[in-house]
Amino acid sequence: MSTPTPAEALGPVVTAIDHVGFAVRDLDEAVAFYGRAFGLPLLHEEVNEEQGVREAMVGIGDSAIQLLAPLRPDSPIGKFLERNGEGIQQVAFRVSDIDVAADRLRAAGLRLLYDVPKRGTADSRVNFVHPKDCGGVLVELVEPAAGAHH
Amino acid sequence: MSTPTPAEALGPVVTAIDHVGFAVRDLDEAVAFYGRAFGLPLLHEEVNEEQGVREAMVGIGDSAIQLLAPLRPDSPIGKFLERNGEGIQQVAFRVSDIDVAADRLRAAGLRLLYDVPKRGTADSRVNFVHPKDCGGVLVELVEPAAGAHH
Ligand SMILES: [Co+2]
Ligand SMILES: [Co+2]
Repeated sequence: MSTPTPAEALGPVVTAIDHVGFAVRDLDEAVAFYGRAFGLPLLHEEVNEEQGVREAMVGIGDSAIQLLAPLRPDSPIGKFLERNGEGIQQVAFRVSDIDVAADRLRAAGLRLLYDVPKRGTADSRVNFVHPKDCGGVLVELVEPAAGAHH
Repeated sequence: MSTPTPAEALGPVVTAIDHVGFAVRDLDEAVAFYGRAFGLPLLHEEVNEEQGVREAMVGIGDSAIQLLAPLRPDSPIGKFLERNGEGIQQVAFRVSDIDVAADRLRAAGLRLLYDVPKRGTADSRVNFVHPKDCGGVLVELVEPAAGAHH
């Protein structure tokens, strides 16, 4: 047997698509729409004052669609809506350990938006890869809270 | 016991996020990047002449990232790149039965891009919800081929 590479020794860090984030103008309307049209159940709703967002998770299999509505026009989602209108804003990769994931990405030359992870939805720990280092895609990293249903 | 609604009787039709599609300029470079940075393995690669696309699926959990590069500038992905640059272009919901899904969506007042499903990646059957009826999001419906690993 050959010596495993570091990636083989540590095992996969990215485990699933945690969620895909859609920027919406009206959160309640969007939650109702994805329930009515696609049968996606509301799992969770919260306000994140720091991010300037009111958000809801609607379930799809073991993943979710994160619906994101701005609390104020100068928030990241407010600016996204101003620039692009409603649409897909981010994709979130679920990771088993966000510190290991961040170290590996930095070692691969990618910039992350935060020096240390921030609190995300439902007490998860999150960070973001800089879209300029990731083909224009805003990739979020999510380590779910211990005891979360994922 | 109360009489089930039609949705309860038929069970959920949308079962998972099948894939998220990223428009890229260079397919080989993108496949190498998602392998190196995120450890996502190449599952499948094909050319779809009708759609004017060369594409690859890289695996993430039970889902995939679909990397889409244009065969010609006037293809849908070519036009997307011209308008938006590289980035997230679509999200695909896996469905247990694409004909049932299409009927329900039309009954809910949503327009689909094709009258009948077309052949998608790896002999799946696919259709798309019109983004104007879906908050600016291009939602693909995918019924995997019988015997596909999903
Ligand atoms: Co998110
Ligand atoms: Co697709």
